[in-house]
Amino acid sequence: MARIVQKYGGTSVGDIDRIKRVAARVKKTRDAGNEVVVVVSARSGVTNALIERALAINPVPEDREMDMLLAVGEQETIALMAMALHALEVPAVSRTGSQAGIVTDPAHTRARIIKIDTTRVEESLEKGEVVIVAGFQGSDGRENITTFGRGGSDLTAVALAAALTADLCQIYTDVEGVYTADPRLVPDARKLTEVSYDEMLELASLGSKVMQARSVEFAKKYAVPFEVRSSFNEVPGTIVKKEVESMEDVVVRGVAVDLNQAKVLVSNLVDKPGSAARIFQALADAGVSVDMIVQNIGRNGVANLTFTVPQSDTRRAEQTVTALLKEEGSGEVEIFGSIAKVSVVGVGMRSHSGVAATLFSALAEAEVNIQLISTSEIKISVVIESEAAEQAARTVHDAFNLSGTD
Amino acid sequence: MARIVQKYGGTSVGDIDRIKRVAARVKKTRDAGNEVVVVVSARSGVTNALIERALAINPVPEDREMDMLLAVGEQETIALMAMALHALEVPAVSRTGSQAGIVTDPAHTRARIIKIDTTRVEESLEKGEVVIVAGFQGSDGRENITTFGRGGSDLTAVALAAALTADLCQIYTDVEGVYTADPRLVPDARKLTEVSYDEMLELASLGSKVMQARSVEFAKKYAVPFEVRSSFNEVPGTIVKKEVESMEDVVVRGVAVDLNQAKVLVSNLVDKPGSAARIFQALADAGVSVDMIVQNIGRNGVANLTFTVPQSDTRRAEQTVTALLKEEGSGEVEIFGSIAKVSVVGVGMRSHSGVAATLFSALAEAEVNIQLISTSEIKISVVIESEAAEQAARTVHDAFNLSGTD
Repeated sequence: MARIVQKYGGTSVGDIDRIKRVAARVKKTRDAGNEVVVVVSARSGVTNALIERALAINPVPEDREMDMLLAVGEQETIALMAMALHALEVPAVSRTGSQAGIVTDPAHTRARIIKIDTTRVEESLEKGEVVIVAGFQGSDGRENITTFGRGGSDLTAVALAAALTADLCQIYTDVEGVYTADPRLVPDARKLTEVSYDEMLELASLGSKVMQARSVEFAKKYAVPFEVRSSFNEVPGTIVKKEVESMEDVVVRGVAVDLNQAKVLVSNLVDKPGSAARIFQALADAGVSVDMIVQNIGRNGVANLTFTVPQSDTRRAEQTVTALLKEEGSGEVEIFGSIAKVSVVGVGMRSHSGVAATLFSALAEAEVNIQLISTSEIKISVVIESEAAEQAARTVHDAFNLSGTD
Repeated sequence: MARIVQKYGGTSVGDIDRIKRVAARVKKTRDAGNEVVVVVSARSGVTNALIERALAINPVPEDREMDMLLAVGEQETIALMAMALHALEVPAVSRTGSQAGIVTDPAHTRARIIKIDTTRVEESLEKGEVVIVAGFQGSDGRENITTFGRGGSDLTAVALAAALTADLCQIYTDVEGVYTADPRLVPDARKLTEVSYDEMLELASLGSKVMQARSVEFAKKYAVPFEVRSSFNEVPGTIVKKEVESMEDVVVRGVAVDLNQAKVLVSNLVDKPGSAARIFQALADAGVSVDMIVQNIGRNGVANLTFTVPQSDTRRAEQTVTALLKEEGSGEVEIFGSIAKVSVVGVGMRSHSGVAATLFSALAEAEVNIQLISTSEIKISVVIESEAAEQAARTVHDAFNLSGTD
């Protein structure tokens, strides 16, 4: 007997038929002799409809009330899922986040989990019940409902798996797993059988939008292995865990493309001590998250500083930097919106000097111009024209033989 | 400064604009220097949509999960109402039934209130906040959500008014108050300025569907005066309280018509001791609520027993009685669906012998045939053909001069 936490996203429970299909899958898992905890999201579309209604009433809704409102979406799904399981004669009980013992800090709309009191969930599992937990939400311990922000249901699943020392955590979604590249961009992208947390983090945060980084980080911290797989078929997905067997052999695990960044160029900045620090502090204060940073100093003591920011932060970044440059007394800002960031990701990359060379020559052969380069322990990223992104991804995917076997 | 509990039903908060309009009304009440607690229902249509979804998944949903599901409707409204008040710069905080301290027994879908811990609501009122409470729901004290059944939001309002020793409880609805008769049936029906709990109970339970009997009974028990009024205009409504000033002068307060009853005739029942008791015990066991009962014994020892039941219970009543008559060894059942029950209601009626006579002769003049008669302390009811209901109601309304002044 294993203890399994299964998480089903909004698309997987999008309508009556899909809820019934998930219930059948849960029944099958339980009939095989397992203890099952099911975490569900709001039906797809429900959360957005609630947000729309809120904004029509108040363009700046208070966070506490937003949590009170949005928690409704998951609560509907857990009740319907329990009913669907009862219809299959599976004993089941629904629990809101609060009822599942999930205690968070009081930071409404972006709460962090402090602890999980699993008493009631354990009681139900002992009685042989399937426990259905509302994802994305908890309570601040003072009876206020809190929510975790985007991707919060994955976090609920991973955190519950850790707290319940589950044998397996399955993240059911609308893709079959983690791929070597986005299959929409690279048709011969291949599904990975296994991937490490760090690789998953880079692949996920870079546009293979399978899971939010936060949940993967949580899983890494508590060493919770999990599987990403599709709720629409029976195909095994990708196992995400600490170490991946093939780690030594295969250096590059995947190619990620991110089209949601913009490039900010600060030119003719007279290089005074701390200029860069002040710019990035101002951006941090303004809540702009900066990704890649490159600086060159010319011989006349004038610096060119380039960095990327999420496209949604472009305006704020421009305003912040413009104001700061006025104080500094030099420099101009320019924004380039149509860029793409292409990254190759793989643990152990650092010790294989050939990776960068292979990447750059593949792009050169494809006549793709590299604007920026940045490297880390497990990834090399380049910024290119967004029009070249698809071509670049395919070329790089080929160059590293990613469509071969795992 | 007064403490006021205002309850707004599903139609009153049916869409964004109506929620904003209610918020404006609440603001006005608060700006006048009052402490305000607002109880809201689910937006009209939401509860039915949830029930529909539940039944599509499981035709016999478990009560606990039904409560988990339905509670969602009110929770949405309280959050939106808080946001609407914030938009008007009114400090406000939403509370689910559980968060408002409403503790019930564990009878899901028909829970009864055991106690209300008003600590948190009082705290908010002290801070000058408007408290918005989800109607219709509470918690069983073991973290399970419970609901009260139909009309439950009125109950929340009345119970909170009692627990908070509010100065006034206002039930905002889509009618302007309690009328001497249903204005759709009797065009010159008049709104009553005041009415006693008992009269309201008879008028409401008999088809002037303003409020469920349960909430009026609760208000009577705890002597909570309340006002029934429209949320769509500023017209004062009807005050419902223990004693009504005009009580001695005006005997008949209103005419009620109930078209939702069916008549069950049990004929040729050999009169054995306890026959009737066994029939009504069986009906009670089957959950059929019986209203009027009339029995005549013929001289050959054969009894005819007639009673009325809600139309929705007709089939169950027929099956139950048929099974019992088999055991008894005599009697036949016949169902008459198209009947109407017309009642005149008024405290003090018993001591005015003329009421019955006036009622019967008015009906006789209108050539309406009376099938059954039943009387109580404050009401006389007759069962007639349903086709004659409208004509009968108008005739009786006229006969008692109900369109005159209060």
